[in-house]
Amino acid sequence: MSAASASLDAAQVASILARVAERRPRVHCLTNTVAQNVTANMLLAVGAIPSMASHPEEVAAVAAGAGAILINLGTISSEGERAIPKLLDVARERGLPLVLDPVFVELSPLRMRLAQAVLRLPGVSVRGNAAEMAALDPALARAQGVLRVTTGRIDRIEGAGSAYLVAHGHALMTRVTGLGCASSALVAACRTVEPDPALAAAAALTAYGIAGEIAAGRAAGPGSFAMHLIDALAGLDEAALAARMG
Amino acid sequence: MSAASASLDAAQVASILARVAERRPRVHCLTNTVAQNVTANMLLAVGAIPSMASHPEEVAAVAAGAGAILINLGTISSEGERAIPKLLDVARERGLPLVLDPVFVELSPLRMRLAQAVLRLPGVSVRGNAAEMAALDPALARAQGVLRVTTGRIDRIEGAGSAYLVAHGHALMTRVTGLGCASSALVAACRTVEPDPALAAAAALTAYGIAGEIAAGRAAGPGSFAMHLIDALAGLDEAALAARMG
Amino acid sequence: MSAASASLDAAQVASILARVAERRPRVHCLTNTVAQNVTANMLLAVGAIPSMASHPEEVAAVAAGAGAILINLGTISSEGERAIPKLLDVARERGLPLVLDPVFVELSPLRMRLAQAVLRLPGVSVRGNAAEMAALDPALARAQGVLRVTTGRIDRIEGAGSAYLVAHGHALMTRVTGLGCASSALVAACRTVEPDPALAAAAALTAYGIAGEIAAGRAAGPGSFAMHLIDALAGLDEAALAARMG
Repeated sequence: MSAASASLDAAQVASILARVAERRPRVHCLTNTVAQNVTANMLLAVGAIPSMASHPEEVAAVAAGAGAILINLGTISSEGERAIPKLLDVARERGLPLVLDPVFVELSPLRMRLAQAVLRLPGVSVRGNAAEMAALDPALARAQGVLRVTTGRIDRIEGAGSAYLVAHGHALMTRVTGLGCASSALVAACRTVEPDPALAAAAALTAYGIAGEIAAGRAAGPGSFAMHLIDALAGLDEAALAARMG
Repeated sequence: MSAASASLDAAQVASILARVAERRPRVHCLTNTVAQNVTANMLLAVGAIPSMASHPEEVAAVAAGAGAILINLGTISSEGERAIPKLLDVARERGLPLVLDPVFVELSPLRMRLAQAVLRLPGVSVRGNAAEMAALDPALARAQGVLRVTTGRIDRIEGAGSAYLVAHGHALMTRVTGLGCASSALVAACRTVEPDPALAAAAALTAYGIAGEIAAGRAAGPGSFAMHLIDALAGLDEAALAARMG
Repeated sequence: MSAASASLDAAQVASILARVAERRPRVHCLTNTVAQNVTANMLLAVGAIPSMASHPEEVAAVAAGAGAILINLGTISSEGERAIPKLLDVARERGLPLVLDPVFVELSPLRMRLAQAVLRLPGVSVRGNAAEMAALDPALARAQGVLRVTTGRIDRIEGAGSAYLVAHGHALMTRVTGLGCASSALVAACRTVEPDPALAAAAALTAYGIAGEIAAGRAAGPGSFAMHLIDALAGLDEAALAARMG
C-alpha cells in the first residue's frame, strides 16, 4: 500500500527482524521518562535489549557495549543534557549508529541547540513528526550523511540516494503516549543488524506499522491497543508481513 | 447517585468532553515519573495533548503555549523544584488555569513548602485525597479563590459559591498507581474549555468515575482495569454518562 | 517443582501474602524510572503501598514511616545517588529491612561503588540476576548477614543457615521490562511482615513465579502478559498456590 515501498518486500523486513531476534543487540536509550517503559518493552518485543543509564558518570561506560544509541530529547534533564556529549563521544569512538528523536524541538530553544549538537556527528538517523522535522530543517540541511525519517500517515525515509515511503500504521498509534518515541528505538535496533540506514528504518517502520494494523483489529480503544501492539510486534512473521505488504 | 450532583447532568459533562476533543488543548504537566505515562495516556484518551518538559531552561517556553498547567509534587526533583516558580510565572502572565496535586504533602516538609508557594497564586484548583487536603488545610484557607477537590469514595468539590459531590468510581481505582494523579490532569484539561473551575472539576471526575465503573465491569483485576479505564474514557458518550448519572 | 522448596508450602506463602494484604505496609522505593510504574502496581497488587520520593531534602522524611526500603540502581541519577546515604541512615536508625537491586552493576563502576556502600549495612537482602550477582560477589562475601537472591530459571535464595530454591515463573517474565525490579519490591514487601529474610524472599518469588505461570496461560504475548501478571498476583490464594506447588 505504499509507493516506493515496492522496493521493500516482506522477506527483507523479516530477515532484519530475524537478525535482531538472533543477535539480541543492546540499544542504549537516553530517552524521556514518559516513554522509557513502552520503549523498553517494544525493544524487548523484537528481541533487543534496552539500557537506559543517563548519569554523566556512568553513561559512557554503559553505552560502550551497546550496538546503537538513541538520543530522545523529550523531558530532557540537566543531567541528560550533560550525558549527550558523552554519548556522542562513544558513538564516534566506537562507530555506533546513532538515532536522534527531536521531540517537540519546535517548542524549545534548548532542544534545538541540543539537536544541532547531535547533528554535528555524521551519519545520524533522525526520526520525527512533520512539525519537528520542519523546525529542524536548517540543521538537517547542514548535517553530513543524515537520514531523515518523517513519520505520519505516510512515513517518508530520505537518505543520500535512497528513499522509502511506508504507508502502514493506524490512527490509534497517535492516541498512545510514547509510541513515536518507541519507533525511534526500533529504527536503532534494526540499524544494529542492517548497515543501510534507510533500509533499516524502512524495515522498522513497516514492521511497526503492520503490528499497529493488527493491533487495531483487536483493540477496544487506546488502552488495549498498546498491549496488542506489543503482542503483535512480538508475534510478527514473514507471512503476516507479506499479507499486508501486498 | 450523588447529592449535589443533581445540578450536573450528562449533557453538561458530554458538552465539556466534546469541547476538549474538538479543541485538543495541550496540558503542561510537571508531574511525577511514576504517573507520567498513565497521565499522558488519560489526557490523550479525552483528546487533549500532554507535554511534560521540566528542565528549568525550557519549561517556561514549552508551557507558554499550553491551555493549562498541572503541578504534581510526587517524586519532585531539585530540577522540578526549580521549574515551579517558572511555571507560576507563565500561569500568571498568560492567565493559564493551574491545578495542584499535593501528593503525600503530609509526609514531606519540602512538598508543604512548595505547595504553599503554588497557593500564593490566586485561583488554583487543588486535587488531593483526604489526608493530603487535611494537611494542606491552613494553606488552603489562606489561598485566594482556591477550588478544593477532595477525592475519595465521594469526591467533594468546593469553590467560592459552588459545590458538587461526585459519587462515581470504583475501588479498583485505588489499586492502580497514578490514577489519582491522572484525574488531576483531566481536571486541568476540562478547565481549558470550561471557565467555571468547579463545573470543570465535577465534569472531569464524573466522566472519570463513570469510566472507572464501566472498566470495573470488564476487568479481571487491577492490571486489566487500567487498560479498560483508558478504553472506557476514550469511548464515553452522553448516553453512557446518562445511563449512570440516573 | 523445586528442590529445597519442599520446606516451603502453600500455607506459608499464603500466610505471608495475607499479612501483607492486612497490614498494608509502605515500601519506599528508590528505583529506576523505567520500572517505577510496574513496581508500584505490583506492590499495590499484593496490598502494599509504594512511595518513591528521591529528592535528598525529603527522602529521609518520606522513608521514615515505611516498613521497608528498596534501593534499585537502574537509571541512578546524581540526585538518587545523594539519596542513598540518607536512606541507609533511615534504615540503620529505624531498623528497617533493606533490599538492594544491583541492576547492570557489571557495566558501571559507579553502580559497583554505590552497591558496595549499601552493603556496608548489615542484613541487606540482594536480588539480582546471575551476571549481577557474580560481579558483586566480592562485596557480597564481605557483607555481614547478607541474603543472596539470584533469580533466573531457578531462583536461588541463600542466607546464613537457610536456603531455598524456587522453580516457578515463565520465560515471558524476561520479555517485559521492570519485572525483575518489581520482584525486588515484593521481596521487600514480604520482609515487612516476615522476620526471616530467606523465607520472606522465597515466599515473594514463589508467589510471583506462580502468578507468572498463571498469566502465561492467559497471555497472547509480552504486552498482555504484564497485565495478566498483575491480575494473577492480585488474585492469588492458597488454593492457586497449592495447585502449582505440588
